[in-house]
Amino acid sequence: MEIDLQQAARLLDGWDDILILAHQKPDGDAYGSAFALLWALEWLGKRARVETPDGYLPGYGFLFGNYTPEEFEPRFVVTTDVAGPGLLGPLADRWANRIDLCIDHHRINNIDAAHKLVVPEAAATCQLTYEIIRELEVPFTPSMAGAVYTGIATDTGCFRYGNTTPEAHRIAAEMMEAGADYALINKLMFDTKSKGRLEIDRLMMDTLEYYFDGRCAMISISSEAVERAGVSEEELDGIAGFPRSIEGVEAGVTLREKPDGDYRVSLRTTGELDASAICGRLDGGGHKNAAGCTVSGPLERAKVQVLAAMEPNMSQESPPCP
Amino acid sequence: MEIDLQQAARLLDGWDDILILAHQKPDGDAYGSAFALLWALEWLGKRARVETPDGYLPGYGFLFGNYTPEEFEPRFVVTTDVAGPGLLGPLADRWANRIDLCIDHHRINNIDAAHKLVVPEAAATCQLTYEIIRELEVPFTPSMAGAVYTGIATDTGCFRYGNTTPEAHRIAAEMMEAGADYALINKLMFDTKSKGRLEIDRLMMDTLEYYFDGRCAMISISSEAVERAGVSEEELDGIAGFPRSIEGVEAGVTLREKPDGDYRVSLRTTGELDASAICGRLDGGGHKNAAGCTVSGPLERAKVQVLAAMEPNMSQESPPCP
Repeated sequence: MEIDLQQAARLLDGWDDILILAHQKPDGDAYGSAFALLWALEWLGKRARVETPDGYLPGYGFLFGNYTPEEFEPRFVVTTDVAGPGLLGPLADRWANRIDLCIDHHRINNIDAAHKLVVPEAAATCQLTYEIIRELEVPFTPSMAGAVYTGIATDTGCFRYGNTTPEAHRIAAEMMEAGADYALINKLMFDTKSKGRLEIDRLMMDTLEYYFDGRCAMISISSEAVERAGVSEEELDGIAGFPRSIEGVEAGVTLREKPDGDYRVSLRTTGELDASAICGRLDGGGHKNAAGCTVSGPLERAKVQVLAAMEPNMSQESPPCP
Repeated sequence: MEIDLQQAARLLDGWDDILILAHQKPDGDAYGSAFALLWALEWLGKRARVETPDGYLPGYGFLFGNYTPEEFEPRFVVTTDVAGPGLLGPLADRWANRIDLCIDHHRINNIDAAHKLVVPEAAATCQLTYEIIRELEVPFTPSMAGAVYTGIATDTGCFRYGNTTPEAHRIAAEMMEAGADYALINKLMFDTKSKGRLEIDRLMMDTLEYYFDGRCAMISISSEAVERAGVSEEELDGIAGFPRSIEGVEAGVTLREKPDGDYRVSLRTTGELDASAICGRLDGGGHKNAAGCTVSGPLERAKVQVLAAMEPNMSQESPPCP
């Protein structure tokens, strides 16, 4: 059943012994929305705990400190920022059919829950958590404010992406006033690179090539480079956006070597250039400006396949500026 | 004479034929504060124009479009975001002694003006321009909103830096609602790298070295690299922040070769590590976490001098976490 913010707050107000589940590979919005809700429920005198399939990643220790989940048998189960049961990983078996309330902002949400609050217009699930906490009339502690700020800042790329809303800015302002340590959070989330990620960046920049008069930039990442740099999958996130960020580039291609020697292709485009049409020619798909596919190796062969698939679109003249 | 926002608005309301001066090497806040004010004055039916020592840089065309300044003999002169007369470059001779109103947010402001509105607490001069426009009861057009948004976003590093205020977020929210094309502005200001800048990044990463158990990261930029990449001084801005952004690094050193073969040193530190004390040993200075000095070349000799100056501070144990 779809419910609104007020109804979600009223349900939570009536419950106790609440398990809050976040998704696997938890990010700032996953932890932020789960922990802000946890602390609001605890402030109301309720018993609750947060679980994720990957536990409590040390990189987010600034958010939840030395968290030790309380042991109890849950009577109610809430998911925050979880778009589908698969994202609950090994926790799905036990809980996926027992979810009482799903709070999320993903456009497509496949969670099976008794009550669903899914608001795709929200910049982050933390925006919904914020509004529920307001409904519950719980004052924002610095920890809660930091958690909400983290979720909103990370899901909007620190207010850079197109999904940023005026509401996201206003909540950030309020959370700063409530004590969110925004300078520390921003430094940790947006201004820190691991030495391994830096090494990957260096190796990746050495592979940079331009095609179609500089309108296409292509980079490749070998398995050996990933191994040598010792970086996690998590740290590699975001690399696909790099080639498109170069001035004058309309199509950014990232080729990532797979264990079997084939290549995973990420294509990011600007404007009217249709990434999903290009990847569709290689049995892939996606959105208009972000799509993917898999092509067979070795590297030179992979490049040729991608460039051939791009050719029909790239040889067209750029449309005149509106 | 120091005046407040209301007084500044009242003065402007009574004036006409107004020249607005921005500083050399104009950035988002320089252009943003000058043009937002220009358009507000024009909305009130006044004659005004914006001048900068460097004209109207094409990289900011999204902000001022095809601007052609109106010809007239100014009766009043206003500076926005100009911290001192030297920053007026060749315009100083003619105007530095004729400034009627100075609007700025720099902590130290040496402009000689009949009236001064200098508010260091403001995240950007655009915040002051915004408040003056509100006082003047001029509605924000999309162009004015885009100009104000640009200044606030660029001076706060898109809301990342420690100078970001709740007020900066609230103004951003209002400017988005007034039609600021924030997605385009953010893409151009924060998500676009020139091919030359990219080449410098690549060359720079190849020079990266760690010292003091990885607590110091050092990069160097040769004149040859700058020439080869064909980048402007403007595009090199911000590089000094890079080495400190590496995980675990407390001191980031950037060595930039000068035409005479000496090196300009930029030192950025975290926490209690005193950059100005270190640079002071090399006859330089600055702030606690950002300082500079000049050392003699060649490169290896420059490095040794910097490392020797750092040694007394770096060999101390890191203070325990609070």
